[in-house]
Amino acid sequence: MITLTTDFGSPYPAAMKGVILQRTDARLVDIAHNLPRQDPRTAAFWLRETLPYFPPAVHLAVIDPGVGTGRKALVVRAGEHALVGPDNGVLIPAARRLGEEIDAFEIDPDHEAFPDTGGDGSTFAGRDVFAPAAAEVHETGVENIEEIDWLSPTDYEDLVFPEAELREREARGEVLVVDRFGNAITNIPGNILEDRFGSEVAVNGTAVPAERSYAHVDPGQRLVTVGSHGNVELAVNAGRGDEAFGVGVDSTVTISY
Amino acid sequence: MITLTTDFGSPYPAAMKGVILQRTDARLVDIAHNLPRQDPRTAAFWLRETLPYFPPAVHLAVIDPGVGTGRKALVVRAGEHALVGPDNGVLIPAARRLGEEIDAFEIDPDHEAFPDTGGDGSTFAGRDVFAPAAAEVHETGVENIEEIDWLSPTDYEDLVFPEAELREREARGEVLVVDRFGNAITNIPGNILEDRFGSEVAVNGTAVPAERSYAHVDPGQRLVTVGSHGNVELAVNAGRGDEAFGVGVDSTVTISY
Amino acid sequence: MITLTTDFGSPYPAAMKGVILQRTDARLVDIAHNLPRQDPRTAAFWLRETLPYFPPAVHLAVIDPGVGTGRKALVVRAGEHALVGPDNGVLIPAARRLGEEIDAFEIDPDHEAFPDTGGDGSTFAGRDVFAPAAAEVHETGVENIEEIDWLSPTDYEDLVFPEAELREREARGEVLVVDRFGNAITNIPGNILEDRFGSEVAVNGTAVPAERSYAHVDPGQRLVTVGSHGNVELAVNAGRGDEAFGVGVDSTVTISY
Repeated sequence: MITLTTDFGSPYPAAMKGVILQRTDARLVDIAHNLPRQDPRTAAFWLRETLPYFPPAVHLAVIDPGVGTGRKALVVRAGEHALVGPDNGVLIPAARRLGEEIDAFEIDPDHEAFPDTGGDGSTFAGRDVFAPAAAEVHETGVENIEEIDWLSPTDYEDLVFPEAELREREARGEVLVVDRFGNAITNIPGNILEDRFGSEVAVNGTAVPAERSYAHVDPGQRLVTVGSHGNVELAVNAGRGDEAFGVGVDSTVTISY
Repeated sequence: MITLTTDFGSPYPAAMKGVILQRTDARLVDIAHNLPRQDPRTAAFWLRETLPYFPPAVHLAVIDPGVGTGRKALVVRAGEHALVGPDNGVLIPAARRLGEEIDAFEIDPDHEAFPDTGGDGSTFAGRDVFAPAAAEVHETGVENIEEIDWLSPTDYEDLVFPEAELREREARGEVLVVDRFGNAITNIPGNILEDRFGSEVAVNGTAVPAERSYAHVDPGQRLVTVGSHGNVELAVNAGRGDEAFGVGVDSTVTISY
Repeated sequence: MITLTTDFGSPYPAAMKGVILQRTDARLVDIAHNLPRQDPRTAAFWLRETLPYFPPAVHLAVIDPGVGTGRKALVVRAGEHALVGPDNGVLIPAARRLGEEIDAFEIDPDHEAFPDTGGDGSTFAGRDVFAPAAAEVHETGVENIEEIDWLSPTDYEDLVFPEAELREREARGEVLVVDRFGNAITNIPGNILEDRFGSEVAVNGTAVPAERSYAHVDPGQRLVTVGSHGNVELAVNAGRGDEAFGVGVDSTVTISY
């Protein structure tokens, strides 16, 4: 199984699939192709929250603002999974969830296994480097990754999401990502709300109902809830939480309860 | 085969696929993931018009504005098909097309077959309840559904689309849904136009050409036609019929011919 | 393997998949379903740039502004591939890339192999004609296409993209398509920039940096680069090239270098 995640929209990912299907009969599963453009941090969040639901697989993730600028191309092994993508941190939070230890390998894009794109770069490494690399890792097997001769052990650029500070009856965190519906997803663990559902908490000083799900408040009303990722989310039933709370990525969020 | 229909956009459906693929090798087919948010009626229409084209399958459909509020979770058997989703009517019109008789079963989300989401609800029942339920129904087989110990027979919330009134040379109906292109799809059967193509009919009192397809009128011009669902559609070639005719869901439409 | 390309958005392509899966177990791969509406030329470009990356397959492409107006329905054989779609040129540039010779066959939509849609046309030939045709071509095998009794040899409407004029240190071409990110893709071959990366060229008289990839200029800055298709592209890093350069499809582009 190979999963695919990009910010390419359509039809670019189809060329990647063609390249893969020239090399393997693996099942292909799309994670997302409309992630925010050139934003490895948001993609890293979604990969971390999504890939652990999958059986062992090769996960191709190309959110790559540095394409063509000499950034490394990686294969990261994490447990029985492998992740393939650029060295900008996008793969790492998911890898940490998938395996206790993670090993990184650098792809040599000038190896004859890859098409000669005629210079020191390509605008479509997803198709020309990452897709054939993912297919080969799949065919070789994650456990035999050291046998692949265009891979060599390497270090990698890390990406660590900040952790919330938990005090007595107060949590101080920040917005990690805003999803397409406008829900502002924080790094505050959802269990702080466990005994508060149905009552109010203070979000940045303002009282807001804490509810198990959107439908517990009227359409257009604000709430704090726990999203599918287990984190506290600032939301509006049938509306945009980011706008109603006046927050965006990196905004500080303090919840008193 | 398992089909998936949601209003989740992306990347949420991917977690559902991961959960399913942990449990079965079934083929997965996406019906739609960008249906109007929290609108079971529109989703019910599209499921009714789409699922009958499929071979026997398990159809997972999560349009679930009542998630976390105690609404029942259902498996509905219809002929050789099964439908899995919330008890808000979204499954029923399709089920009636798929089978002469339909049987409904309630899912017990507190059964150990499902993850303990730590309370009386979850914001992502699609991933935590409906996806594993669909996988299990697929593996058990639709004909053996009674063997599943977290299912029990139940009644269900019905959803019946209104029928048009057909009189002598006049049909009175309403708009059931508006598609993404702005075509206003009515409940008036398309066969009333059978002998009228190429001439005009009166739509709410105004003369409009009846044509077999959009291209028979100039771009920007209004027409009535018969959509792929077999119903009369108010449309504009390369434009939005809903705006040009001033109609939306539930608007009354009278066609005299 | 059967690939699918449409301008239908969602959920219409799902009905096509159901029809296909009634007839074959072939792998299905989506190329794109959100191509610009009723624009065979843009679709032809993307098919030409994408399909050659695939192993031998049947490629279903339904961008069909003339549906219901008597245009022919085609199967085109190109090497080990077959393309299925309307006779408006959309299939031809890709077919020329896939095979040295191409043979066209006309589909008889009134044959009993297809549902009787009750007249001289249908608004959803993708589901009623092209999908069952693609499934049958897949099952029969591209090499045995002559055996299919609802196919007969035919000529076809051609579509040829204009070629750029290359002179001494100047190329004169035009914009073929604008992608979803606003990159204006020209017909000028990318190799004219080979020795120019890192310096400036003149685009319609104005100096613009030529770079291997977007990230070589600051966000919001213009550049010319070579896209994944090998052609010169007018772009803006993290912005829209079409707007910044004031160009659209068919605009003349002269590059002096």
